[in-house]
Amino acid sequence: MSRLEKIFGGLPDKPGAEHMRTLFDRYRALMTKGDLDGIVALFAPDARWEEPVGTAPAIGHDAIRARYKAALDGSGGSIPVEAEGAVRIAGNRALATSIARVAPDGHPLMVESANVITCDEDGLITEMLVYVGPTNFKPIKE
Amino acid sequence: MSRLEKIFGGLPDKPGAEHMRTLFDRYRALMTKGDLDGIVALFAPDARWEEPVGTAPAIGHDAIRARYKAALDGSGGSIPVEAEGAVRIAGNRALATSIARVAPDGHPLMVESANVITCDEDGLITEMLVYVGPTNFKPIKE
Repeated sequence: MSRLEKIFGGLPDKPGAEHMRTLFDRYRALMTKGDLDGIVALFAPDARWEEPVGTAPAIGHDAIRARYKAALDGSGGSIPVEAEGAVRIAGNRALATSIARVAPDGHPLMVESANVITCDEDGLITEMLVYVGPTNFKPIKE
Repeated sequence: MSRLEKIFGGLPDKPGAEHMRTLFDRYRALMTKGDLDGIVALFAPDARWEEPVGTAPAIGHDAIRARYKAALDGSGGSIPVEAEGAVRIAGNRALATSIARVAPDGHPLMVESANVITCDEDGLITEMLVYVGPTNFKPIKE
């Protein structure tokens, strides 16, 4: 493992892998509850948020709150989100894939989404990029 | 879906979702075969490659080839890679989670990795960020 240890030795050790991993657990639980205050509190005050990645970002708590409010309101106030695979953690940057259930216009759909985050030393999210597109929306199979 | 269509309408439509999805299939097949030329040919000549994300990048075909050669050589010439979930595709940017099997120093391990890419209009990869860290290396369960 010496080649790998050398490679990974260059990564920031704060806020730590356990924090990065449990952050996604908290995020999913808050989305599932529809806890808007809790979601916003995961972000640094000047955080950048892009959904989907490559489009106009929301920057800062107020803008991020407005985007989550629109998403939650569009699905009856909450969006159940479940983990797919294990969180990939590279220092203070991490990535998680999830399956969400939304109901735009009352039509239930599953969404394969992925959240790519960067955290500051205190563990707040400074950037979240959401990788998702039209091919990731699928009818829910009962 | 009108809110979503509006959001996704801002994404680049080249090289197209089908190309983005199949690129990961080709990448995994080439890694599994240990086809170094084939892997390098997926990248634009001046592509940026970071593994793990946040560390010193390899830039350009020669540097990228050297990094893949070291990785492949370290695992006996090939690295079997299997898809985990569906590819998340946002225009010309996409993300795939995979399970790879490596054998550094002869010790077989599974690696939960994720590749985040950006492509140019011709479908070549201009940036690949690999999200992986020490917590993603696990003993192989027979």
